[in-house]
Parts: sequence; C-alpha cells; structure tokens
Amino acid sequence: MANRDHGDPGDAPSIPPPLAEVPHAVRPSAAEEARTIAASTNTATLATLTADGDPWASFVTYGLHGGAPVLCVSNLAEHGRNLDGDPRASLAIVAPATDTDPLASGRVTLAGVAERPAGAERDAAREAHLAAVAAAKYYIDYSDFTLWVLRVQRVRWVGGYGRMESTSGAEYAAAEPDPVQPRAAGAVAHLNADHAEALLAMAASLGGYPDATAATCTGADRYGLDLRVTTPRGVAYPRIGYAAPIDSFDELRSAAVELTRRARGTR
Amino acid sequence: MANRDHGDPGDAPSIPPPLAEVPHAVRPSAAEEARTIAASTNTATLATLTADGDPWASFVTYGLHGGAPVLCVSNLAEHGRNLDGDPRASLAIVAPATDTDPLASGRVTLAGVAERPAGAERDAAREAHLAAVAAAKYYIDYSDFTLWVLRVQRVRWVGGYGRMESTSGAEYAAAEPDPVQPRAAGAVAHLNADHAEALLAMAASLGGYPDATAATCTGADRYGLDLRVTTPRGVAYPRIGYAAPIDSFDELRSAAVELTRRARGTR
Repeated sequence: MANRDHGDPGDAPSIPPPLAEVPHAVRPSAAEEARTIAASTNTATLATLTADGDPWASFVTYGLHGGAPVLCVSNLAEHGRNLDGDPRASLAIVAPATDTDPLASGRVTLAGVAERPAGAERDAAREAHLAAVAAAKYYIDYSDFTLWVLRVQRVRWVGGYGRMESTSGAEYAAAEPDPVQPRAAGAVAHLNADHAEALLAMAASLGGYPDATAATCTGADRYGLDLRVTTPRGVAYPRIGYAAPIDSFDELRSAAVELTRRARGTR
Repeated sequence: MANRDHGDPGDAPSIPPPLAEVPHAVRPSAAEEARTIAASTNTATLATLTADGDPWASFVTYGLHGGAPVLCVSNLAEHGRNLDGDPRASLAIVAPATDTDPLASGRVTLAGVAERPAGAERDAAREAHLAAVAAAKYYIDYSDFTLWVLRVQRVRWVGGYGRMESTSGAEYAAAEPDPVQPRAAGAVAHLNADHAEALLAMAASLGGYPDATAATCTGADRYGLDLRVTTPRGVAYPRIGYAAPIDSFDELRSAAVELTRRARGTR
C-alpha cells in the first residue's frame, strides 16, 4: 500500500506510465525502511500518557538494542512519571532531512509498551544507550534515571509523499537497517555529476522510459537506484534494481557499473 | 524552578558561587522561551490518542497563529483519525541544534485540545500554515485535509540541562518570541572572536567573578548575555543583563558596547 487516495482538487500533476514492460524492481520493505530510519539518529519524540490519560509528547534520546529503542529518562521528568503510571508509549523518529520540504523526509512511528530491562538485557541496553548517546555517561547512573526498552508492537513508516506502509513489531525486529542508504549521498551526487548519460540509458532501457530526456538519481539502497526522469509526457520516478542485492556500501560502485553495462546492452 | 534534584552519584562537577553580590539579571520567562522555540522551526511531533487510548507520536508541520500551532493533516492519516476521535493533543518542538549534545538543546511541549477553526479564524489559520509550510499549497485544499488549531492549555519548557519550567497556556499566549536570540549566533561568535577582554571584564565586574581567567559568550537575548566563565574554582555560568531590554536584533551591538563600558568602569 504505497499510494494516496486524497480528494484531489484536480490540479495535481499526474505521473506518466512506463512505455515498456520493466522487471519488478525490489525496494526495501517497510520494516527495513523503519530500521534504517531508526538507525539514522539518536533523537526522537516520545508519546506517553499523563495521569489523566492525555497524550504527552516529549523530546528524548535513544539507542538501539537489536532494533528496540532504549530510553534513559528521569523519574523527575513528566515522561518518566508517565511511563511509571502507564507503560504504553510510541516513538516518532525523523530521518535527517535531505530536502527543503520537511514532509519529503522519511519518518517512522514505533508503538508498543515500555519495559524496564533486567539482568543481562539491562547491561546490553545500557551499553546500547551509551553507544548512541555519549553524554548519557554523565547521568545514566543517577538514581532517578531509569532505562526503558520499547517493545515495538506496531510500526508506521512514511517515506515521504505517497510512500507509506504499516508493519508489525515482529517484521521490524527481523529486518536489518539498509547498509547502503545512509552513506549513499556522495555516491548519488557523483552519479549525477559524472554519469548523466548512464542514468539516462538506465531510465530508457531498464526503467521503461525510452522517451526520457533527462534522468537524475535521487537515492540508492541495497536493492537498487531511485531515478527522477523527465519525459515529454511529464516527470516519472522509476526504480532500477541491481542484478542482486548488495551487502555493503563498498559494493555500490560495481552494482552501478553493472547497471550501466546492462542499460547500454553491452552484456 | 530551574534546578535539578537528581540522585547524584557524587562525581558531578559543582559550580563555584559568585564572589561579589551582583544585580539580579533578568532572563526570558518560560513563556517567552517557549514562544521563541515555537517560532524557530516549522516541524514538530504530535501526540494524539488512538481509538484504544494509546499514545501516538507522529511527525507534523505547523504554522503559528498568535502562538497557537496550526496543523494541516489528512483524515486518511492515523493522527488525523485520532484527532477526529479525541481532540486531546500535545506538540513537542525542538529548537534547531546548537550543540553536539542533543539534550543541551531547547525544547517545549505544548499541550491542550485541537479544534477546527471556523470563519475568519480559519482564513487566518490557513494563511499562518501556508506562510510557515510553503509546500502545503499543494495539498491544503484537498478535501481530506483538515486545519486544526491547538488550544494550548499547558506548557513545559526545557532549555537544556538544568533549565526547565512549566507555564500556562495564558502566559504562553501573552508572551512574545525573543527578537534577538534566533539571530544571535553570528554576534555571539563575533564577541568571542574579537572581544574576549570585554567579556572577561563583564564576568569580573558585572558577573561576580573577579577571579575569572577566561570568559566566552554562549548566548544573547533581549535581556542580556549568557557567559561561560573559567575560574581557579571551576567553571561558572553568570548572566549579564543589559541596562534595559532591547526590542530588536539591531540594538544588540549598542547594548554590548554599554555593557563593556560599564564593566570597565568608563561610565
């Protein structure tokens, strides 16, 4: 489910369909996107319930223990008292902005129940929080601070305009953050600066837009590239999949070379 | 109430007291700080209640109509459905980071009830949202989008470590954003680069630290300067108030000159 169903006033631009049948290009799953966003920063906003059952939004820092957010909050703070009273919680995390339009950024809501970790899990959660939030060393052992692990039961991922999907806590826990996407900005800029012809060939022969007059890369992940393609019929956003998923950022260059060769029919 | 009461494990540094009695230096009120933070950005996290009464955190954009946040959300989105079901809401806003430690940043929670504005207020709220969120022009008139004004009833401001205070919706509504603080970074850098001796004189004769060996400015607002002062007894953070509050950023230079003259006893 990655489409919109708005009450369109009638003047929104439409996206031209591909002119050729193209192979299905794999994208990261909602669970993978959510894990990638969660791994991209160490700040979020927590929603908890006050004693009156009102929703309370508050800024927090977090680390990740196997994908589960680990918070360290003071019992003296309102959100700490709220968690003590009712453990239901959700966490909204926004990926670092890549666009001047804030709603074009990826974000995720992780909802579930906060629990105090115990025993070995507490030690691992403490290390996870300290690894992500260096300044926590100054207060993590204060007696009024408590570690909480958010047991994620439900996930809502929004990738930007028109890209959104819900998934379960189990899918989220089983997924991995994308190893390529967080480091891809430089490689994407290089593709656009020095390989515009290759991108145009990909759009034409692999993306279904033989009428493309320009193509820029807007993102890269372990499964493929996202393109923005200009045609006389309008602007389209095809996906170009690699021959096989890659497991590290260092494989991105050879994957892009393979796509270029395939697009030009040289293999 | 701007102090902490943590269960200190015993190794936190203590702040040396001033050696001379100093005039009370006015700081912005919690309501002013909250208004300043709310005016500093156009993105926030909304907390709403799901049909089950669970807390739901989600990323939103907003504009301000006389300090009241104006949201524009789709009824198709979870937070839109939540507001339809229960109007209780709060909004967490984080000031743009000025420090590598995220918990040193200012943030605020505005809590209350969301209402659909009507008549002339709706027009003004629509303009306020569009003025803050340029991209909203593409969807604000879609039939599934609704404008909501958050009627702020309760405010919790956190200025960073050890600076926090609660205030009422009425105080928040009556306050103004600080006209100096959002633009002060360049002036603060200039003071530190070119006027270290003047800052040291302020710390010594106006801040109560005649034993200061170094002083840097960490912030400026309409009422005065915040300093970080090194002494043989430790590091302190005195406040230096102008002769009178200033009403615009352009008055900051003359206010700093007046402080320098006064600190050096030349007037």
